[in-house]
Amino acid sequence: MEKIRVLTLVGGISRDSLNKKLYHAVKERAPQSIKILTFDISKIPFFSQDIENDPPDSVIEFKDLIREADAVLFITPEYNRSFPGVLKNAIDWGSRPYGQNLWDKKPAGVMGATVSNVGTFGAQHHLRQVLAYLNLSVMAQPEFYFTSKNSFDEKGVLTDEKTKKFIDQYWRAFSDWIIKLIPSSEKGESREFAKDEHPPTH
Amino acid sequence: MEKIRVLTLVGGISRDSLNKKLYHAVKERAPQSIKILTFDISKIPFFSQDIENDPPDSVIEFKDLIREADAVLFITPEYNRSFPGVLKNAIDWGSRPYGQNLWDKKPAGVMGATVSNVGTFGAQHHLRQVLAYLNLSVMAQPEFYFTSKNSFDEKGVLTDEKTKKFIDQYWRAFSDWIIKLIPSSEKGESREFAKDEHPPTH
Repeated sequence: MEKIRVLTLVGGISRDSLNKKLYHAVKERAPQSIKILTFDISKIPFFSQDIENDPPDSVIEFKDLIREADAVLFITPEYNRSFPGVLKNAIDWGSRPYGQNLWDKKPAGVMGATVSNVGTFGAQHHLRQVLAYLNLSVMAQPEFYFTSKNSFDEKGVLTDEKTKKFIDQYWRAFSDWIIKLIPSSEKGESREFAKDEHPPTH
Repeated sequence: MEKIRVLTLVGGISRDSLNKKLYHAVKERAPQSIKILTFDISKIPFFSQDIENDPPDSVIEFKDLIREADAVLFITPEYNRSFPGVLKNAIDWGSRPYGQNLWDKKPAGVMGATVSNVGTFGAQHHLRQVLAYLNLSVMAQPEFYFTSKNSFDEKGVLTDEKTKKFIDQYWRAFSDWIIKLIPSSEKGESREFAKDEHPPTH
């Protein structure tokens, strides 16, 4: 059985990024049926039409990964009630040149972590608007607004039991969502996805 | 008399950017009382907390310019119903480190040009939400949604008379807005701003 490939993009690029920690917890708790792909979006230059037809290797590599992905999971911090420029930039690259939107029809999920009280609501909803335009099918519920102060240990490992359970719940809903939406014919008739028994065995 | 310093930031960074052309027309038609400052925001790296306390020279230069500015004018393209990552990134830099928001209380304007029909409405309203959070005082009206196909000649010079008039109208409203909002005491008691007779003499 083939695994479902989920490209997971993290909007936080600093060493101690809270959203990177969330990413590691989410990856760690992914069901057996899921294979996580990821990419360091800070390697990509600012988008410009001057280079879109002859992009640098980092962009080619990123685009190949989008093509390979069955679904996309965005994990974003909130900067000034929206999502970071580095993430918007990566998304824009994936949509260009005009008429070659690689995000088209991908099932998607959105999560975010912050130390502030709004829980990345602003970031996620700006992001959802952009993803809607790009024709990703973003799962509506459960939402994942994560206000974290003491949920990770000093090594960045998630220790909070309630959050662990919520991540498991998110994964159940998200893998159902992906399976429902992937047109099996798109990746070749023979492809059959692995299925998990609920709940995941973590 | 001192001129009013308006930092004008352009979200389009390609050589033939339509918004750069709009910027040149806007600068050309600025009233005598206005001095335009600008900055190439593509020189700034992606924001990261790892470097916010010891940023590169490009960021230091950019922040000095924000401090110097009496007001800010944003001219943005629309990418996927929002504004470009390169512009979001620059705005985020100006708001950091935490508690040192350099945008605070600046009067601001928002404009945008595109070849598509929505006229950058999506981009401008995502931008307005971010600017509201950062406590810039963004002029409400007139809005400036510019759908341009044949308004510039082959050298990038604005030839369309209706758009020229609208830029003049925008400048009248925007300089009134700035004058109304700049606390004169903030820049030193002795500072007195130049005033234009309406309409501008172009």
